[in-house]
Amino acid sequence: MKKMRAILKRAAEPGLVLEEVPRPEITADEVLVRVRMAGICGTDVHIHHWNDWAQGRIKTPRILGHEFVGEVVEIGKRVSGVTAGSLVTAEGHFSCGNCTLCRTGNAHVCPQTQILGVDTDGAFAEYVRVPATNLWPIPEGIPLEWAAIHDPLGNAFHVVLTADVGGKTVLVTGCGPIGLFAIGVARAAGASRVFATEVDPQRSKMALGEGADRVIDPRTEDVRKIIQDETRGEGVHVVLEMSGNPEALRQGLRVVRNGGRVQWLGLPENSVSLDLTRDVIFKGLTIYGVTGRLMYDTWYAMRNFLLGRRYDPSGVITNRVPMERFEEGFTTAAAGQSGKVIIDVSGSNT
Amino acid sequence: MKKMRAILKRAAEPGLVLEEVPRPEITADEVLVRVRMAGICGTDVHIHHWNDWAQGRIKTPRILGHEFVGEVVEIGKRVSGVTAGSLVTAEGHFSCGNCTLCRTGNAHVCPQTQILGVDTDGAFAEYVRVPATNLWPIPEGIPLEWAAIHDPLGNAFHVVLTADVGGKTVLVTGCGPIGLFAIGVARAAGASRVFATEVDPQRSKMALGEGADRVIDPRTEDVRKIIQDETRGEGVHVVLEMSGNPEALRQGLRVVRNGGRVQWLGLPENSVSLDLTRDVIFKGLTIYGVTGRLMYDTWYAMRNFLLGRRYDPSGVITNRVPMERFEEGFTTAAAGQSGKVIIDVSGSNT
Amino acid sequence: MKKMRAILKRAAEPGLVLEEVPRPEITADEVLVRVRMAGICGTDVHIHHWNDWAQGRIKTPRILGHEFVGEVVEIGKRVSGVTAGSLVTAEGHFSCGNCTLCRTGNAHVCPQTQILGVDTDGAFAEYVRVPATNLWPIPEGIPLEWAAIHDPLGNAFHVVLTADVGGKTVLVTGCGPIGLFAIGVARAAGASRVFATEVDPQRSKMALGEGADRVIDPRTEDVRKIIQDETRGEGVHVVLEMSGNPEALRQGLRVVRNGGRVQWLGLPENSVSLDLTRDVIFKGLTIYGVTGRLMYDTWYAMRNFLLGRRYDPSGVITNRVPMERFEEGFTTAAAGQSGKVIIDVSGSNT
Amino acid sequence: MKKMRAILKRAAEPGLVLEEVPRPEITADEVLVRVRMAGICGTDVHIHHWNDWAQGRIKTPRILGHEFVGEVVEIGKRVSGVTAGSLVTAEGHFSCGNCTLCRTGNAHVCPQTQILGVDTDGAFAEYVRVPATNLWPIPEGIPLEWAAIHDPLGNAFHVVLTADVGGKTVLVTGCGPIGLFAIGVARAAGASRVFATEVDPQRSKMALGEGADRVIDPRTEDVRKIIQDETRGEGVHVVLEMSGNPEALRQGLRVVRNGGRVQWLGLPENSVSLDLTRDVIFKGLTIYGVTGRLMYDTWYAMRNFLLGRRYDPSGVITNRVPMERFEEGFTTAAAGQSGKVIIDVSGSNT
Repeated sequence: MKKMRAILKRAAEPGLVLEEVPRPEITADEVLVRVRMAGICGTDVHIHHWNDWAQGRIKTPRILGHEFVGEVVEIGKRVSGVTAGSLVTAEGHFSCGNCTLCRTGNAHVCPQTQILGVDTDGAFAEYVRVPATNLWPIPEGIPLEWAAIHDPLGNAFHVVLTADVGGKTVLVTGCGPIGLFAIGVARAAGASRVFATEVDPQRSKMALGEGADRVIDPRTEDVRKIIQDETRGEGVHVVLEMSGNPEALRQGLRVVRNGGRVQWLGLPENSVSLDLTRDVIFKGLTIYGVTGRLMYDTWYAMRNFLLGRRYDPSGVITNRVPMERFEEGFTTAAAGQSGKVIIDVSGSNT
Repeated sequence: MKKMRAILKRAAEPGLVLEEVPRPEITADEVLVRVRMAGICGTDVHIHHWNDWAQGRIKTPRILGHEFVGEVVEIGKRVSGVTAGSLVTAEGHFSCGNCTLCRTGNAHVCPQTQILGVDTDGAFAEYVRVPATNLWPIPEGIPLEWAAIHDPLGNAFHVVLTADVGGKTVLVTGCGPIGLFAIGVARAAGASRVFATEVDPQRSKMALGEGADRVIDPRTEDVRKIIQDETRGEGVHVVLEMSGNPEALRQGLRVVRNGGRVQWLGLPENSVSLDLTRDVIFKGLTIYGVTGRLMYDTWYAMRNFLLGRRYDPSGVITNRVPMERFEEGFTTAAAGQSGKVIIDVSGSNT
Repeated sequence: MKKMRAILKRAAEPGLVLEEVPRPEITADEVLVRVRMAGICGTDVHIHHWNDWAQGRIKTPRILGHEFVGEVVEIGKRVSGVTAGSLVTAEGHFSCGNCTLCRTGNAHVCPQTQILGVDTDGAFAEYVRVPATNLWPIPEGIPLEWAAIHDPLGNAFHVVLTADVGGKTVLVTGCGPIGLFAIGVARAAGASRVFATEVDPQRSKMALGEGADRVIDPRTEDVRKIIQDETRGEGVHVVLEMSGNPEALRQGLRVVRNGGRVQWLGLPENSVSLDLTRDVIFKGLTIYGVTGRLMYDTWYAMRNFLLGRRYDPSGVITNRVPMERFEEGFTTAAAGQSGKVIIDVSGSNT
Repeated sequence: MKKMRAILKRAAEPGLVLEEVPRPEITADEVLVRVRMAGICGTDVHIHHWNDWAQGRIKTPRILGHEFVGEVVEIGKRVSGVTAGSLVTAEGHFSCGNCTLCRTGNAHVCPQTQILGVDTDGAFAEYVRVPATNLWPIPEGIPLEWAAIHDPLGNAFHVVLTADVGGKTVLVTGCGPIGLFAIGVARAAGASRVFATEVDPQRSKMALGEGADRVIDPRTEDVRKIIQDETRGEGVHVVLEMSGNPEALRQGLRVVRNGGRVQWLGLPENSVSLDLTRDVIFKGLTIYGVTGRLMYDTWYAMRNFLLGRRYDPSGVITNRVPMERFEEGFTTAAAGQSGKVIIDVSGSNT
């Protein structure tokens, strides 16, 4: 049996290991991909740390990783239209394809969704198997690192493109990797003025680099007053909440203008108390909960932004580690001061 | 100086009085209306009881009442297109007309809005003055009682018509007057199955009469299980939250299907704690805070529904009292067992 | 080899024959259905008559028929979730599933679409094979005849549900079967006033029966004046063009109000000359070309309308013929005076 | 009586004159503006040349001009919120404000609209009077020349912002001034690839300068083949038709992809013959007729694009002439080789 190296949760406890494991076997409808690079997501950090959510969801052993790029090395016998050797990534949300939601353009919230690297073995490995339906070919002109982060970048495009930001003022609350992506994507999509809130100085600086017109530190500055002053007292048209922080969630509702739109992508760990009457109902707000990506509208639009060089995510990719130094990558990703951390699985970067 | 009878808050304390007061003088841009009927709103009950909100908002003395119908008796000299003697009601939200929101179709959330019977003297009086811009002529074919409740009925149309209910399953949480209206309006707009939750047996019965397919008592029945059972396990497409009750708000988020739409109209008195990650973000929900009516899209659509007899609100109008028995009307409205209570100001009904 | 009876175009010339032909063999991803009833569509009539379009598109021999209901009798070995004996129909547009359009909710306009009974053998036969992906199970509560016409009924739902007709005035130009369906569906979806134009007296009468408020004969009455008179001079909000007649197309643009919406479903045979400046651009119209059904949003909504008895198409189904009298059915369908004609394949109705 | 210089149509015949005429008197609801600059529109050229449309619409004598910037010099006594000396332009479509369309966000297609410089005396004059409701203050940071062309620039924003171009491929047919604006605005709003068609070499060069990725000469190149080749055979997502040329109108329908969107702004002089079945209905297109600007959504968004320097129209403003050389300006504007021509009324540029 062929072997490969993989980063996995071996047992139901904190920590991950890099081990040799069997290389996956594909079914007739699947494709085997040799992984080149893979991105570390906050979800991976949670599984590493073994938080409550991870304990309830993850069955061990489990190979992590759902953001990746690689090349097709084996093709299931019922799969057509896929070329061996071609560069691909995949939509890591495997929806059922048969339910009402899947059949009406809502596959991103299919209740039967299995997630790569969470419910099935993932891409922090030399090889990963994925259903052919979820493959996404990487066209020429897309750098490898951009391809490796289609998943989180897609989240940023989803959050921006469903908010109709053209000619509008936008506040991004929280400048982790997806928040940083969202700043640049909002600018590329025509947002006229982009504010951001962030507590870490390095991320604040990156936010400015990505095109934020002003970055506010919510611990030392009066976010609401600043936003009011810079928007003729009206508040921003759109809030993109990327932090999951309860204070940021409440603040977003305060500083969006009446009739505005709020996109919630960041995941609060606990219930959040909100003044719905004052901050949502009387303001006539629309709130949209953002999960995953619209299949596959978001990725088609993203591909066009990337190929046309209307948006360049390179500045947000700040760290690369080879597979054997994955712990260093996880530490960086968990520290809240970096952009996206990429694991170089195949040694492409080293 | 001409006098008139009016129901007013005389001093900053609980209670209302029926007194003789001066008849209002109109400006060049206003119209004086002799009131025929006026509806009692929950807001009026709050002002009567002098709750926290009322104490913070109401300046005394103040004549209450913002739902009404009457006939034009005096016309400001700069007003055109209004005929003396014609039947009218008025949009009781007086927006500024000049701000960004007013100039972009969001007058319903204009921050400078003054509300009739709250910030200016209202329609629980023999005469009321209103800005000509806000007048709404009542065409032939609209009964007087329907005209008297255009304001709350408009709220129901707003909540339904912005939810795209055609061919969809709908849950209405809370069967006060606006909830009861919403049931019938949802049916008229093509909702395929309408569920309602309500604790009061009389209102539950009315909900069935208005066209609810099933009314559930959330204290004795398992709302979630029933909804799941009757929607192939998917949940409803749309929730119209009309109660402001925290449990109903949370329940609405649980029983709406993934990708669904939730309309919040009921006003919770305090902050509400919500599991946003599980119940909003992972579900990919859209939530819309409903306040007032879209000026004047909602009323034009409502007029067409009413004139075409696609919807008939008569069943929800359950109580009429003459002006001198207003206390009885308020007691009924506050009891949570009736439909809409109308004050017969001119003796039309007696 | 098993045989079956089928109505087919034997050679590239006018006419159809009823013959014994081999029963179809299914692939692993297909299902064999024993047909109970099938509807005659205008497209079938064109193929029968062998018009220009048919001559360019149809390869003979070809079994016609794309509207049908039947029961599953054989299930391909890779198909899951389908029960032998269950009642089904199918979406007869077989889109490729892989192109950009298919992957972004636009499968109804996939350029690779193959149409049942046009590009593959159809349902005017005792047995028909269909891809499992396109199967649509018929739930209890849906009469057999309704199931047999899901295809054209879906067109009517598509045309109405994409036009947001709630509280609006609607003109349906042309009262063939789909136009007649559209009248009732528009009413069920909340249209406040439905006008129709039609030249045939029988169809005009049916239009009234289906809920049209007024049916106008464009040859003897002044359509524009009547519409203006009955809409306060504004014109209708929405036009549903179902005839393909150039005069009706032009008239629809004249009588829709400024800012209104026009849905084009009827297929003109030749190019049509339009005054775009006056009738489209200065009016600020939106025009939508309606083809097929949104997969599968339209059918889910339709199922709910039908199951909830919000709409009943029975009145539009006017003629049934047994298979051997198919010529009579085609003659009726071609005459322009009937509603939908159904071929009773299995003798269910006889 | 005070006098001023103005460019006007003196009599019902071709030609314009520069004459001394009485300075306009304002009403209580109007404002008098001293004009600084004014743009020449194709409409002005038509009035100059006295084409059929102009002969039917214009009453002489009439001062032309509806694109302008100037400073407030006199304020009607019922006008509030306007400061003497402030820079302004105005929405030149004076809608009635009272009709259903005006009250439901469709003022841009109000049938009672009067147009500045067409139905009332315009801005090719030292002074112009405008209703206060239509004033648009020019904030700091907007150059005078940009302010002078808010009207046609607003058309370009209208055509782009209602087409949802983010991440999409766009074809602009016709590179007159509004077409040239539209190219840049589409890029600023996130269009991933912008094609243009144009016959004049100078305008083609300008189109490239404004950000078109490729400009095609429809007389010498195969537009359809080029578009197919560069869009994976799919066609463009969006066509912005700015020419009014029948061939361009037909070509736009051919090269837009199925399910795509077509915006018609250019005004064909005669009826146009279209293959609706093949090119609109079977393709499932949406077509939108663009007239004027959405009041005032378009201008608010435009202001944000301009203030945030997300879009800069300077490159499209190619010619300036002093008032006395207006004939030269009209000749240039009519020649089809320039960008926007501005008349410097006050000598600001000289």
